[in-house]
Amino acid sequence: MSYAAPLKDMLFVMNELADLAAVNALPGCEEATPETVQAVLEEHARFCSEIIAPLNQTGDREPGGWHDGAVTTAMGFKEAFKAFGAAGWQGIQHPAEIGGQNLPKLVAAACMEMLNSANLSFALCPLLTDAAIEALTIAGSDAQKQAYLANLVSGQWTGTMNLTEPQAGSDLAMIRTRAVPQEDGTYRIFGTKIFITYGDHDMADNIVHMVLARTPGAPEGVKGMSLFVVPKFLVNPDGSPGARNDVQCVALEHKLGIRASPTVVLQFGDYGGAVGTLMGEENRGLEYMFIMMNAARFGVGLQGIGVAERAYQKAVSYAKERVQSRDLQGSAGPVPIIHQPDVRRMLMAMRAQIEAARALAYVTAAAFDVAHHHPDLAVRKQNQAFYEFMVPIVKGWSTEMSVDVVSTGIQVHGGMGFIEETGAAQYYRDARILTIYEGTTAIQANDLVGRKTTRDGGETAKAILAQVRRTESELAASDSPDLAAIHARLSAASRAMEEAVDFITLHIQSDIKAVFAGSVPYLKLCGIVLGGWQMARAALTAEKRLKDSLGDGGGDAAFHQAKMATARFYGDHILPQACALRTAIVEGSSGVLALTEEQF
Amino acid sequence: MSYAAPLKDMLFVMNELADLAAVNALPGCEEATPETVQAVLEEHARFCSEIIAPLNQTGDREPGGWHDGAVTTAMGFKEAFKAFGAAGWQGIQHPAEIGGQNLPKLVAAACMEMLNSANLSFALCPLLTDAAIEALTIAGSDAQKQAYLANLVSGQWTGTMNLTEPQAGSDLAMIRTRAVPQEDGTYRIFGTKIFITYGDHDMADNIVHMVLARTPGAPEGVKGMSLFVVPKFLVNPDGSPGARNDVQCVALEHKLGIRASPTVVLQFGDYGGAVGTLMGEENRGLEYMFIMMNAARFGVGLQGIGVAERAYQKAVSYAKERVQSRDLQGSAGPVPIIHQPDVRRMLMAMRAQIEAARALAYVTAAAFDVAHHHPDLAVRKQNQAFYEFMVPIVKGWSTEMSVDVVSTGIQVHGGMGFIEETGAAQYYRDARILTIYEGTTAIQANDLVGRKTTRDGGETAKAILAQVRRTESELAASDSPDLAAIHARLSAASRAMEEAVDFITLHIQSDIKAVFAGSVPYLKLCGIVLGGWQMARAALTAEKRLKDSLGDGGGDAAFHQAKMATARFYGDHILPQACALRTAIVEGSSGVLALTEEQF
Repeated sequence: MSYAAPLKDMLFVMNELADLAAVNALPGCEEATPETVQAVLEEHARFCSEIIAPLNQTGDREPGGWHDGAVTTAMGFKEAFKAFGAAGWQGIQHPAEIGGQNLPKLVAAACMEMLNSANLSFALCPLLTDAAIEALTIAGSDAQKQAYLANLVSGQWTGTMNLTEPQAGSDLAMIRTRAVPQEDGTYRIFGTKIFITYGDHDMADNIVHMVLARTPGAPEGVKGMSLFVVPKFLVNPDGSPGARNDVQCVALEHKLGIRASPTVVLQFGDYGGAVGTLMGEENRGLEYMFIMMNAARFGVGLQGIGVAERAYQKAVSYAKERVQSRDLQGSAGPVPIIHQPDVRRMLMAMRAQIEAARALAYVTAAAFDVAHHHPDLAVRKQNQAFYEFMVPIVKGWSTEMSVDVVSTGIQVHGGMGFIEETGAAQYYRDARILTIYEGTTAIQANDLVGRKTTRDGGETAKAILAQVRRTESELAASDSPDLAAIHARLSAASRAMEEAVDFITLHIQSDIKAVFAGSVPYLKLCGIVLGGWQMARAALTAEKRLKDSLGDGGGDAAFHQAKMATARFYGDHILPQACALRTAIVEGSSGVLALTEEQF
Repeated sequence: MSYAAPLKDMLFVMNELADLAAVNALPGCEEATPETVQAVLEEHARFCSEIIAPLNQTGDREPGGWHDGAVTTAMGFKEAFKAFGAAGWQGIQHPAEIGGQNLPKLVAAACMEMLNSANLSFALCPLLTDAAIEALTIAGSDAQKQAYLANLVSGQWTGTMNLTEPQAGSDLAMIRTRAVPQEDGTYRIFGTKIFITYGDHDMADNIVHMVLARTPGAPEGVKGMSLFVVPKFLVNPDGSPGARNDVQCVALEHKLGIRASPTVVLQFGDYGGAVGTLMGEENRGLEYMFIMMNAARFGVGLQGIGVAERAYQKAVSYAKERVQSRDLQGSAGPVPIIHQPDVRRMLMAMRAQIEAARALAYVTAAAFDVAHHHPDLAVRKQNQAFYEFMVPIVKGWSTEMSVDVVSTGIQVHGGMGFIEETGAAQYYRDARILTIYEGTTAIQANDLVGRKTTRDGGETAKAILAQVRRTESELAASDSPDLAAIHARLSAASRAMEEAVDFITLHIQSDIKAVFAGSVPYLKLCGIVLGGWQMARAALTAEKRLKDSLGDGGGDAAFHQAKMATARFYGDHILPQACALRTAIVEGSSGVLALTEEQF
């Protein structure tokens, strides 16, 4: 099997670190019992391994194409997406009243990870559809909900996000697409959108584009943007897809990776204007788009974890099979390369970073659930702040991590890793988009510094650090040498993060460029430290379980020992980077900014 | 122009850091006057930019193919290689008596960097031919020299290295190719060699394969390997290519990158045995192969620097052109993204690491020249030890650096970086082989730990550290705040390296696995620290030049200020990683080795 979901690891994180029981106890989450969750995960794992994963390499090799203005997807994608919808997977995190499964985001997060491990290209379509569903749920009119939600949730139709234009990438203020109001209350849309993922395809009966555009006389910049729903086929009064709308796919990009997911240029309004309806109020488009983007950004973070896990499994499998060289301390013949210390180091580095990023993402998902369902407003607010602080980190750090991990995956394979047929190279190509789309790492870092850290004067950051300190106290109370080592590393790393937070909040007004010169190092620092915090919590749990099982030879001893060793590795090999990043942030701005443009 | 050689940077390193004048003063290097060297570099820069660089992207898109048992190369490659040979570039570092230019390795290193910047795929052919020339020069018989050298140096013929077999990659002990002695003194070769770069092509009249094989009754393992010269076409008594030898290209690999360089499977002896002649003595093949490999490894290090420089130039150019978002402190409209602090940070990280790796490589090349030409045996020995210590670092660290830098190059481009037409993605694909072939980074690290650091009890490593300390003293004597900051960072980093050296030499006997668990972090640590040493030396020179030119507004002030700022960046952003690596090496082995094979 090319992918086997790490269900035991996932359930460990969900139960021990993300507190699934507490989520299950929330009003509205009663269905997410441990038994149901395990059954859902097992079924999704089977679906991903058997139906979706086999299409990954074939889709990369023969990604479909664009002919006569229409995109056809890779062999098997259409049928797989039908099966996906029919099984109810698109609806997993959406409310029952629109046909969803009403499961918490924590459960959806694990399912998303699996789908992305199986096939990054395929998983993008549901990811964007989820974002469209979320935006419609929150900002759509009753008529819009009526027209679109059920079909999106059932996987009959799919959704897209239309932000980027040739001159407007990271800078959405430069968007030029126009929306002209009509007498019947609709708008006509005119403009060009680029890099539209699944902007055209043959997997669904209709495509619902969420389009950012300007109405006549709207304020300049980001305050003058409105969001429109523009379907590929207009919706008939009976709900069925009707006349073709004036939106055309005019080009298909030739990409480094995720080749099976069509990335297209969409032209709106060449034949009189594409018919669209306004979402919510005029000029509040960016606000609604951010709802979609936060969901999508969290999802992209899971893409990073998913592809990294897939690359890790492939590397482990190769390292166990490939026989080469003797064991350093053995006199016998050649052994599998997993005996070589540096192969071990690479596999541990992959594993440790994946486990940390997964834990951080799932804990973030659980905070989302608490923020949306807890009866106590103060608890909701606190969890919402945590969630919002974490989204750019889950997106930015998990994806930066994934680019590193998939590259290590190639390295484990040696020369075979460079041969396309092996498959490791595909992960290296696929993952490379993850630090770019839905906001580059720098955009995530700007969000983390600007909105999430300095706007409240560092309060949320400090509150999270206080939680880290509590974990440090627990570590200090143990007599385990592993936990002592982890304690030392985490304490040093969390101090580094605190110094960075202080520097940033202190200088954001007086020297904004110096602060932003260290924004990406700060994002990475937060990811490393908070990932290390989760690894420490995992180690504490493992220690407890190992003590509990002493004497009865508990079957999970090996599992918990591995958790401990992986956390120890993370402590010794990953956490020390925090101090280097602190230096770059706090003392490193002059070198960043010294040159004139001409000196480059 | 898609590539412009950074001649000013190159000459700065050659003159100020690698001491070209001292090399020029060596017996046998008299021709390498500053004027000649500058003229050679300028001419090579022109050739690379105008003739070779334009074939890079076209070769990637249409890399030629394999039909009817023969490989055809990409459009323009054949003509370009003819021009390359005709201009004498293949002979640049080879002796005049075999038709070479007799220039020092220091000069050849700069030329190699340029050729690799222009076109990694193309440059591989001369790189391997250089290695074959070097092996023949040192270990070939008079007849072999007579038969092959002139044609290789003139670029009429090309050379290959035939080591890898399906079961023998990093572990050459497992080689099975057989060489059966014949009555006429030749051998018949039988076996399969894989991953043979330029193993077949249409760019030259003959291909000279250097083949590692076993004679009957040879000792097992690496002590029983002999090296054979096996030409594609047997050489007639008049020196012309004659009958086709029994070596066939039976497959062409489909690779992630360097697609225009054919990587083939060669089958020897399917029709009675390929005729080969023994190089030097039987069973000393590995020794000769190491001569070629050291040259090739150094060359691959320059490949890393070359492709990183190309990616940097492309990123700078995009960052100056792409207009997006306002300046953080400006009120005017959108500006080129080079105004954004994080884009600055990325460009500085690329630039600083390239400059450090270039300086380290050129200084290493100069040591090679001194080791080969200096009249004093002690000086030769000392420089040979330095050269040998540095080869795995130049190879391993420069290439690891390049993988990181080309990835950053994509990031600077945002979404455009992921579109193949942009060209940034090609560098990302191409560079990925560099940490693998000619010995993976782990193989380089094993060499650095085993042969270069512990065999002499750390003596060479400590001698180099003593040189670093002298630079630190010079830094300490300055009143420049930049130099003071660099001093602090370099001192901390060199202490980290010293602690790593002590750990490694102390534990190599008692706990070999713990030592090798940190071998790659040690290689990176050495690269970072010694690269930082060179950056510090560059900063000291820049400081001196800036002081000298005070008042006269010297035209090079901007250049030297940039050198200072780049060194400062390196100090604050790169050197601090040394301490994290020290922790991984000295205290990090338990996590690496804790898991059983089953726990993965």
